Amino acid sequence: MTKEEEEFRQLLKEISILDELEQLLDWDSQTHNPEAAAEMRSDVVAYISKLSVDRQTSDKMAELLNKFSKNPDLLSEDGKKIYRRVNREFNIQRKIPNDDAAEYSKLLSKAQAVWVKARRAKDFNIFKPYLKQIIDFNKKFIGLWKTTEQTNYDVLLNHFEPGMTVAKLDPIFATLKQAIKTLMNKLKTGIEPNDQFMHRYVSKVTQEKISRDFITRLSFNYEQGDLDISEHPFTLGLNRNDARITTRYDVHDFQMSLLGTIHEAGHAIYEQNVDPKWARTTLSGGTSMGIHESQSLFNEIMIGRNYYYWIKEYPRLRELTGETFSDIDFETFYRGFNTVHPSLIRTEADPITYILHIIVRYEIEKAIFNDDISLDNLNQIWNEKYEEYLGICPQNDTEGILQDIHWAGGDIGYFPSYALGHLYAAQFLHAMKQDFDVDKALAEGNINLITDWRKDNIFQYGCSKDPNEILMDATGEELNPDYWIQHQNEVYKYVYQLN
Amino acid sequence: MTKEEEEFRQLLKEISILDELEQLLDWDSQTHNPEAAAEMRSDVVAYISKLSVDRQTSDKMAELLNKFSKNPDLLSEDGKKIYRRVNREFNIQRKIPNDDAAEYSKLLSKAQAVWVKARRAKDFNIFKPYLKQIIDFNKKFIGLWKTTEQTNYDVLLNHFEPGMTVAKLDPIFATLKQAIKTLMNKLKTGIEPNDQFMHRYVSKVTQEKISRDFITRLSFNYEQGDLDISEHPFTLGLNRNDARITTRYDVHDFQMSLLGTIHEAGHAIYEQNVDPKWARTTLSGGTSMGIHESQSLFNEIMIGRNYYYWIKEYPRLRELTGETFSDIDFETFYRGFNTVHPSLIRTEADPITYILHIIVRYEIEKAIFNDDISLDNLNQIWNEKYEEYLGICPQNDTEGILQDIHWAGGDIGYFPSYALGHLYAAQFLHAMKQDFDVDKALAEGNINLITDWRKDNIFQYGCSKDPNEILMDATGEELNPDYWIQHQNEVYKYVYQLN
Repeated sequence: MTKEEEEFRQLLKEISILDELEQLLDWDSQTHNPEAAAEMRSDVVAYISKLSVDRQTSDKMAELLNKFSKNPDLLSEDGKKIYRRVNREFNIQRKIPNDDAAEYSKLLSKAQAVWVKARRAKDFNIFKPYLKQIIDFNKKFIGLWKTTEQTNYDVLLNHFEPGMTVAKLDPIFATLKQAIKTLMNKLKTGIEPNDQFMHRYVSKVTQEKISRDFITRLSFNYEQGDLDISEHPFTLGLNRNDARITTRYDVHDFQMSLLGTIHEAGHAIYEQNVDPKWARTTLSGGTSMGIHESQSLFNEIMIGRNYYYWIKEYPRLRELTGETFSDIDFETFYRGFNTVHPSLIRTEADPITYILHIIVRYEIEKAIFNDDISLDNLNQIWNEKYEEYLGICPQNDTEGILQDIHWAGGDIGYFPSYALGHLYAAQFLHAMKQDFDVDKALAEGNINLITDWRKDNIFQYGCSKDPNEILMDATGEELNPDYWIQHQNEVYKYVYQLN
Repeated sequence: MTKEEEEFRQLLKEISILDELEQLLDWDSQTHNPEAAAEMRSDVVAYISKLSVDRQTSDKMAELLNKFSKNPDLLSEDGKKIYRRVNREFNIQRKIPNDDAAEYSKLLSKAQAVWVKARRAKDFNIFKPYLKQIIDFNKKFIGLWKTTEQTNYDVLLNHFEPGMTVAKLDPIFATLKQAIKTLMNKLKTGIEPNDQFMHRYVSKVTQEKISRDFITRLSFNYEQGDLDISEHPFTLGLNRNDARITTRYDVHDFQMSLLGTIHEAGHAIYEQNVDPKWARTTLSGGTSMGIHESQSLFNEIMIGRNYYYWIKEYPRLRELTGETFSDIDFETFYRGFNTVHPSLIRTEADPITYILHIIVRYEIEKAIFNDDISLDNLNQIWNEKYEEYLGICPQNDTEGILQDIHWAGGDIGYFPSYALGHLYAAQFLHAMKQDFDVDKALAEGNINLITDWRKDNIFQYGCSKDPNEILMDATGEELNPDYWIQHQNEVYKYVYQLN
């Protein structure tokens, strides 16, 4: 290794340590940090954020990246992969003045505490001034970042999914809207499953036991992570040996915590299985939000709602819940478990209408950044779109616009990743089925086969491959939404006993 | 405020932020950080520790402290108090080379993970090489620190309790040994209470409910802190609004978690009630280990084992435990609750033999540093002392030398603080009784009176007063162990129905 690459890696080690601290502070703020400490905590977050940005945009970093751009042979093969990623981030980062970055980070820390308060009060107005400041910062940043992007919102989309644009998403979402409408209409002609039993009481203690048990058998490694409780479930990968997931429990909705935990465990096993050689290089994590979501959704939808998976797992669920489901046979359970109900809450939505939740957020974000709409009645706009697309209307802001923490955390342009995740997941499943009998593996509880495929094709690479490289290398083709549409039509044809 | 004091306070703010991060990392390592992540975690701890030491020993700090020593009028009255404390710490810190400090901090992080492993394996030999390194570091540091102290061990004692020496402690411990021996002999002539009911099953869920309920009514504020679980209970004050305590549960020993939590809550309310003006000055916390322990022990012993406190609280305990204690009347409960049994575990010891646990550790630490004894058979030395002083012998290292985390955390010279805490607590209670009827306040559940006295005399000052100033101002006299001896003789005269 050249002296220059060694210096580069030393600097990245420091940035990676600071990133780990930021993750820990974030996790702690959402799980254990008392509300009264939010003000003091924001000092700490701002301090670490400033240190990190200082290192990321340092003269030393500029000098090294400049050397590498002129003389790529200073870098090893792995070093070149690191350079590509770091250089791209550097060009995004350096355009933000350090003071703005620190101020923004402090704002986000406060905004998340205020969001919790606003949710309790069910009042968007409490959160609105913070959201306004977050959006104003982002508008300012877009002005600094924008180069060849066609629209302002494209700039934000790009950060979460490199190469993604409104021009690409608009037709994909139009196709999906149509396909979902067609499918939903078909379902009306089918036999509505019995799903009353889905609301039977299951204690929080039992639900936690179920969650822990199920994700263990889905390759989540407790020696490299843990499960906690928070208002909104999330995963943070402090490092490959410390992937933390959270969930929440409702005694009359065991599916929420079970599928929620299985979802987060999909994120976590991605983090836990990145090749250790990428540790402390800043490449040790998922490559994009869309690919990350494809792995959580692969867990939740492709496995967690799979017929063959439940053939194997339903007896176990029965065993863990005593007499609760003793009168529910497997077919009844499976069909009830997959009933489609338009829901107000994205994280509780069924896999079909889920996409509509994303389209609402996408259209609102696009309007804010591309059409400069006012925030004043944003909660009403939200509610009207729910009425129009899903036929249901939130009764208050907590079940409406305040349901997700993302905006409070500055994650704008992030939501479309969830929809991309659905599409990627279906495409990965299709490719996996060319390699081995996935249904058989699920029915036999042979999850290792599936995890190994994901390790080989996705997990191990961390950020060393871009999303489209992962997709092309693993599936042999560009993003194709038809796999998702086909998959869901097959599943629901069975669940609703369609002709 | 002068420009110099402003600069000084800015630097202290940074040090205080780094200290808060170190506390968070410590808390997290003991509660949520997975074992496999210990290696990665040690990078982070070392990095933050180095930053902190760099700031604490910086040229800027040296320059400012030098200015203030020559020209005290550059400082406000509060500034002078801050200077006194910071200057003393600076003189300790600057003598340690930065690299050693970082290396040592990294070692402690690893050692704590290894200690957990060694406990599981019940094998001191697993932990020994780490303890040896920790001791070697401390011997090296003592060589750098030592000025006028008479013995090497005095140097370490001083860090936790300024002014404390072997010359002072040897006679105090001799007096206590004698007093405890006399009392224990008296107890043999008394009526042994019935304490079988103390081992009745109380579920962990119920115990947590009891813990949370009891400490709320002892002024612990959940808006400024929380309760968690860890192998060894502890308190960390990240800041006055974020005081974290932990406990552990044994379904056949509800007293352990109850008194343990009450103990830690005593530390926590100290941190929660420091005057906010000391925030981010590095003076916002307890002034010494001994005074800190006096507050946790005031909670645990002076309140938590008090006759009048239990008159008020026993009905509540009964209510929270269903039928468990319905056949146990108050007198039986109170006497059983206070039975004296020599125990192998310090944190489970009764208040009398507890002091002997400390004397064992004190003598071993003194021998390591003043007589250079080998570590090879330290677990056997430990076991022999328990046999001699308490008449009981550990069956394995986990119930022997591995029971406390302190050495793994580098806290050597710390244990005597626990004994000092007992003595201070009794002296504070005696002084409080001159001001109002404490027994009446406890019997009526008027805890605020007691908490207010502690705020006025102790909590509010943070580190702005030294331990002996606190003691003198609050009680009007120097440390006097007779108050402890008198108090315990009175309590146990009743419990054992002595003549």
